[in-house]
Order: sequence, then structure tokens, then C-alpha cells
Amino acid sequence: MDGPLRIDLYQLTMAQAYFDRHMTETAVFELAVRKLPSSRRFLVAAGLEQAVEYLEALRFGPDDLAHLDDLGLFSRAFLERLANFRFTGSVHAMPEGTVFFQDEPLLRVTAPILEGQIVESRLLNILHFQTLVASKAARCVLAAGGKPLVDFGMRRAHGADASVFAARAAYLAGFDGTATVEAGRRFAIPLSGTMAHSFVEAHDREQDAFRHFLASRPGAATLLIDTYDTQRAAGRVVELARELRAQNPPRSIRAVRIDSGDLAREARSVRDIFDRGGCADIEILVSGGLNEHRIERLVRDAAPIDGLGVGTALVVSDDAPALDMVYKLQAYAGKPRRKRSPGKATWPGAKQVFRERGPTGEIARDCVGLEDETVRGVALLAEVLRGGRRSAPVPTVNLAREVCRREIEALPASLRALADSPSPRPAFVFFSDALQALVKTMDEAPPPDDPPPPAPHGG
Amino acid sequence: MDGPLRIDLYQLTMAQAYFDRHMTETAVFELAVRKLPSSRRFLVAAGLEQAVEYLEALRFGPDDLAHLDDLGLFSRAFLERLANFRFTGSVHAMPEGTVFFQDEPLLRVTAPILEGQIVESRLLNILHFQTLVASKAARCVLAAGGKPLVDFGMRRAHGADASVFAARAAYLAGFDGTATVEAGRRFAIPLSGTMAHSFVEAHDREQDAFRHFLASRPGAATLLIDTYDTQRAAGRVVELARELRAQNPPRSIRAVRIDSGDLAREARSVRDIFDRGGCADIEILVSGGLNEHRIERLVRDAAPIDGLGVGTALVVSDDAPALDMVYKLQAYAGKPRRKRSPGKATWPGAKQVFRERGPTGEIARDCVGLEDETVRGVALLAEVLRGGRRSAPVPTVNLAREVCRREIEALPASLRALADSPSPRPAFVFFSDALQALVKTMDEAPPPDDPPPPAPHGG
Repeated sequence: MDGPLRIDLYQLTMAQAYFDRHMTETAVFELAVRKLPSSRRFLVAAGLEQAVEYLEALRFGPDDLAHLDDLGLFSRAFLERLANFRFTGSVHAMPEGTVFFQDEPLLRVTAPILEGQIVESRLLNILHFQTLVASKAARCVLAAGGKPLVDFGMRRAHGADASVFAARAAYLAGFDGTATVEAGRRFAIPLSGTMAHSFVEAHDREQDAFRHFLASRPGAATLLIDTYDTQRAAGRVVELARELRAQNPPRSIRAVRIDSGDLAREARSVRDIFDRGGCADIEILVSGGLNEHRIERLVRDAAPIDGLGVGTALVVSDDAPALDMVYKLQAYAGKPRRKRSPGKATWPGAKQVFRERGPTGEIARDCVGLEDETVRGVALLAEVLRGGRRSAPVPTVNLAREVCRREIEALPASLRALADSPSPRPAFVFFSDALQALVKTMDEAPPPDDPPPPAPHGG
Repeated sequence: MDGPLRIDLYQLTMAQAYFDRHMTETAVFELAVRKLPSSRRFLVAAGLEQAVEYLEALRFGPDDLAHLDDLGLFSRAFLERLANFRFTGSVHAMPEGTVFFQDEPLLRVTAPILEGQIVESRLLNILHFQTLVASKAARCVLAAGGKPLVDFGMRRAHGADASVFAARAAYLAGFDGTATVEAGRRFAIPLSGTMAHSFVEAHDREQDAFRHFLASRPGAATLLIDTYDTQRAAGRVVELARELRAQNPPRSIRAVRIDSGDLAREARSVRDIFDRGGCADIEILVSGGLNEHRIERLVRDAAPIDGLGVGTALVVSDDAPALDMVYKLQAYAGKPRRKRSPGKATWPGAKQVFRERGPTGEIARDCVGLEDETVRGVALLAEVLRGGRRSAPVPTVNLAREVCRREIEALPASLRALADSPSPRPAFVFFSDALQALVKTMDEAPPPDDPPPPAPHGG
């Protein structure tokens, strides 16, 4: 899946130009989000485990090199350099599950420039998607107020890969499970599954469908009750539950799912039918076009709901399907570098994010400073790779989930709100004096595109 | 990549229930979009080649079965059934590149119900994403009015997989190339690449960066000119072009790219600098947050632009990042089936889409009818798999691209407009009398969740 040709062509042509000119000095690249979507007040860093795996495993095999050779763009000498490619650099990164904001680097690569350039697109591709989904999922978690959430999104995720990593990112951010079997296998995420309308429709009578499914999944079946008439189906579930209870040994129905209509009203009516029918133990799950706003409304209305399945809105992050995440050169050969394109200027130099917390652990102030500065607060980026090898264990998704849980608990009230952010930049992100001074010095120096100063005239 | 556990858990638990009850009769499932996003007037079918490859190759291997066994949900007998799983059904589908609308099935699966159910999520996952991107790309193609378009979106596509298939879908819909090397390899899509700001910044002087890149990519280099000051960089390009022209043999600069600022104004100013400097042959490419609306504006303003790179907006279909695409049971054991959930009722039976065209080939009227009906117009769904094997060749992406080109040419004016669709349903999609009669009959019959009629009293 991680073939090395998942790369933009220009990374290879630039790498060849570095190679041709013997530009082998160390570059610092940083990955950050330039601007938060208006519907996000914070983001959740995710995908580091996969990013590290990618960097460790990246090699160009014989078939890859043969294909590149066929393109007719690359010299024999450069292809030999690629044949020996290993990522030998260092990586500093925020632990997965960390809350962060715009202009804060979440990952820093320090490596010979050819290596740093070659990993650009795929690093972004990995970290962008999981960060995107974890950030959306965190909003659902905030909205759900403790009610269990399950990822149902596989079918509309953008590809096979996206379905598995969306499940991972959602679990990291506090979801309780996924319906995607491969994600369960790969990351030990609890699996959850109900039944589909097609199953009900394939039977001539709804009650036969329920009976068959209960027989096949004793004790664990969730019945879908909105195929024809939700209330009538709920009544049928009560009858079935009575039958099952009378069996020896007695058996039970775990839950039902409602997937259409006014979910709060339907849930209330079904809860009432169940409670009056002596089925207070049967849980009610809901699904169908849920997002954080609809979840919040259901919870606020105290709808009698025991769990929620979230699909499309989660896995495509429907209200903000991409982040303005970039990977920018900040230093080369010991000198800071700065892009000055209109509206896209960068903060130069190798940087660190220093976070101060309030008395109850809540985020109080972030300061983006230079890597080697002394600034109050805890440094968020820690080394994970050195010389291309892990210098510290990269936490598993379960540990990252614990990090994220604490981060979400510690969010100040202004960040917990789901409504669009009133300000384009959070009021508590600052830039250190040293960083601001560096920008000033660089902007006052002749720009790198200046013609050289005219030679002094002889007196 | 196409592991069989990229599946929703419930497909397997339902399959086990079918298996336990010996429900082995034929089911008809159809894949359709229930409702077009308001910002789409038509969709473009895409992904069939990958869907067919998936169906042909789907097997459960020993590791997959061992994992399923570990879940503790499945019987030994059912796992043995999965060990022998092959997709043995038929598939009818619209050729890739076909324009279609809501409620029109683009693919129909006819298979033993267990098989049809097991392929549900991944079939949707494959066809949804490519259809999504092809439909977005077609709008960019309409807007560009013949100017070349290139996919630059890999870094923000939702995963490795999405980057490659987005490139394929965009090419199918009329894009001219991609920057993603793997997509070029896999589907013979022309590759395109420029240079990044980091390359310019890594050099102490912009002119050195240009020189080095030109030396390394003779004849094919596109120089990025907005890192510091676009006009000054354009002047530098003119100087460099003169130098290169004076060499023996003379060499040239192919193009420049502008990635920020007011693209129309910048392009005009750069064109002017080039033309006055005797560089009328150097092309101008633009990129940076482009979507179909911005492309349309650039073209309408007659900006002197020779090509456009489209990234994020294309690969995530930013204004409509998901389609309401579903896979529904339409018949089982020879009987039509109908879901009646509020707002989500389905058109029952195995169906066909019949299209009538006007004198110049434009889409005039679509009729959704029953599969075996005689209806005026050309049937859009054709058989591609029979007994699990290809009964007709599935066109390659290049042929599909030709289909799509003709489809876009034949769009009536009301569908070509980029503005949001004024009507929730295109005025030319109809439902056949026989199909409407079938719905009526089914709705008048006792619903499948009715209690059985009381036994007649003895006289």
C-alpha cells in the first residue's frame, strides 16, 4: 500500500536537481495547518504511527526504479541514489491525540534535503487524513456527552485505505468502536454491527427476519426496526423478547436500531413501548445522517438513546473535508528560510510549541518559538526518530486515545463549543519574541531574489 | 489492498443468518444515488473497472478466516462456506463515463443473497469515491473551456488509495494529467510536475534555483515564480531564457507556475513581461485553491493561462464530499422488495434506465423502468459479469474517458451550468408506468410487517 511512487513527480525531479548540484546539507521541514476551518476551534494530531512506519520502510524497489527509468526523466546516477535510499533523518512530533491550532508545527523533519523533500506528499497524505477525522470525531465525542459512538462510515470513506484509517482516527478521538472488520483486526478496535434493511426485506415477514437473526446471533443481536413501521416493529420486539425469556435457558434481545424519521421522537416512542412491555433492558441505538450538531440536539433533548452510529459525516469530515495542511522548508544548511508569497508567508526556522496550562490542566497559552529557545511551558514536539530509527516508542492507538481523552477533558469552554469559531486565530496562540525578531531580520535583509548589489565604483 | 475484511461486520453476521436458514435464492441489489447534492446537476459513473476486479478476486484466505474465528461470532460451518466463497453472480452496469442522475441505478448485482450482501460495503466504497471525483472533475472540465487541467491533489486526498483513484477518476472525466507517479504507472495517465517553493528557498538566490532546475530538467522544466516577488522572478526568467537561447544548441524554458495572489492579474502581468521580453513561447500555469468556479472566472476574464493545477477541491470534492449512494435489495426469490422507511423508500424490482437523446445527441429524457420492460430509448445498464466472470470487456480508463468526453459534449445547457441546481430532481427523469404500477400494487398489499389475517370463523 505504501509504494514509494505515491509521490508527486516534482519531488523526484527536485531531488534529482539537489543530487546533481551536490546539495546534501541538512534541511528542516515542518508540517502545520495554516488556517483552521471556520467550523473547527481545535484540531487533534493523528497518524504519527503510520507516518513513522512509512519513513522507516520507504525503499525504491527494482520495479519502481525500472518504471522511473522508463519515464526518461532521470539519470542513471540519480536512480542509483534512489536504489540506496533510506530515510536517515530525525523527526520530532506532537504525540497523537494532542490538541493543536493553526501555525503550530505538529511534526518536524530534519534530514538531508533530498530525503526531506521525497517524503513530503505522502507524509502530508498520512497525517492530514487522520488529523482531519480525529478532529471531526472529537467534536462528536464532545456532543455525545458520554454516550457510546460507533463508526459506520466505511462505505462512503474515500477508498479502502480511508475506511480503515478513519476508524482508527475516530477511535483515537474517543469513539467506542467501528463496524469495519479490517480496522478491528489491524488496531484492535472493538467491533460493532447491527443488521441492514435488506435482511428484513429478504424475508416475507419482518418477524421472521428478527427471529432468524436472533437465532444466528444469540445474545448479541441488534434488530433494525424502521424498515416498514417503527412502532409496530417495536411491539413485535416486545413479543419476541417475552418468547425468548420463556425459553430454557432464557435469552434476551440486546438492542434495536432506528435509522430514519425524527430520531428523538421515534426513540421516545420505542422506549415507551419497551418499558411498558417489560423490556427496559433493551437498548436503543440510532443512526442515519448523524453529525455533531444532530448528536448534540439528541443529547440536549434527553432522547432515550443508548448509542449512536456515525457514518459519512465523520469519515469524510463533511463540513470541512480538508485542512490547509502544508509541509514547508524552514531551514537549510543552517540558515532559516522563509516563503513570502502573498497570503502564504511562513514562520521561519526550526520551531517548537510551548504550552502553558491553567490550574485544572486546561490549555491556557501556546507559544510558538524557536526550537532552541527557553520559553515557559511544556514543549509539545518530542523526538520520535533519530538517524532514521525510533528513538522513542511511538504510542499505540490505545495510548493515544488516553492522551486525547485527557486533552478533550482539559479543553477550555471557549474551545468546546461546536459553533463556528468567532475568531480566525485562537486568542491564546502567541509567537515568541525571538521568532518575531527572526522574521524582522529576514524581512529587512535583501530578499533572496534581489539582484546582487552593484559593484562599488572605484574612487 | 482489497482484503476481504474491508467489510462491515453486519454483512458477515447477516450472511451467517442467511446461511443458517438456507436462504440461497437469488437476490437483486441495485446501487444508486438517492439525491444529488444541490451543487451537482449530473453525476459521472466511475470505478467499474475496480469494482469488477474486486468481485472477481474476492476470497477469504486462511488468515482472514482465523481472525473471524477469533471474533467468536461465526460457526465452523459458516467459516467453511466463506473459505469456498466466490462471487458467482451477474453484474449489469452503466459504462464508466456515463452521465446519470438520482434514483437511476448505475449498477445491478444479481446473485445468491449471501454473495450479494457480502460485497455491499466495498462495492459502494469503490464506486462512490470515483463517481464523486469524476463528477467534480467534469465540472472543472466544463469550466476550463478546453484549457489543460492537471490533478495536483495527492497530499490532501483521503489516504494513499484515494490519491491514485482520484487521479484516475479525474483523468476519466477529462483532466489531462496528474502529478501522482503511482497513478501514472497504474493507469498510463500522463504525468505532470513543476517545482516547489522549498526548492527555491533551499537556494540562497532565486536565480540559482532556476538555473539548477533547468540544468536538471532540460527542455521540460516549469519554474515556480511566486516564492518572493512574482514580477521580479518573471524578469529573471526572461534573462535566463535569453541566456539559454544563446547556447549551442539553443535551449528553452517551457513554462512557469504562479501559485498565489490574484491569479488573473499576476498571469496578465507575467504574460506582458514575457511577451515584451521576447518569450511569447513560455507558458503560464496557475494553481492554488482552484475549483470549478475560480476556473470559470479565470476563463471568463480571458486570463492568459495555458494550464491549471487543481488539488484539494478536486480530490475531496470539497463542496460535496460524499454522495447519498446506496445499495438496496430490490428483489429476492423472484419477488420485488421495497423499503418504506420515512424519506428513504426505494423503487422496487430489477430496473433499467432507458435514455432518449435529441437530434444532436443531447440527453432528452431518461425513463427508469423494469428490467424486462420495453421502453423507448437506449438501455444504459449492460451486462459485464455473468456467473462471476466477465461477459464483456470492461473498458479501460482511456475508453471511458472518450465516453465521458462525448457525454459532456452532449449535455443540455441546463445541465452544463455550474450554479446550484434549481430543482431537486432533473425535469427529464421519469418512471415507467409499469414501475409505478408495481409500487402501487406493493403498497396496497398487506405490508410484510402485518400480523397475519385472523383465521376465518367457521360458519
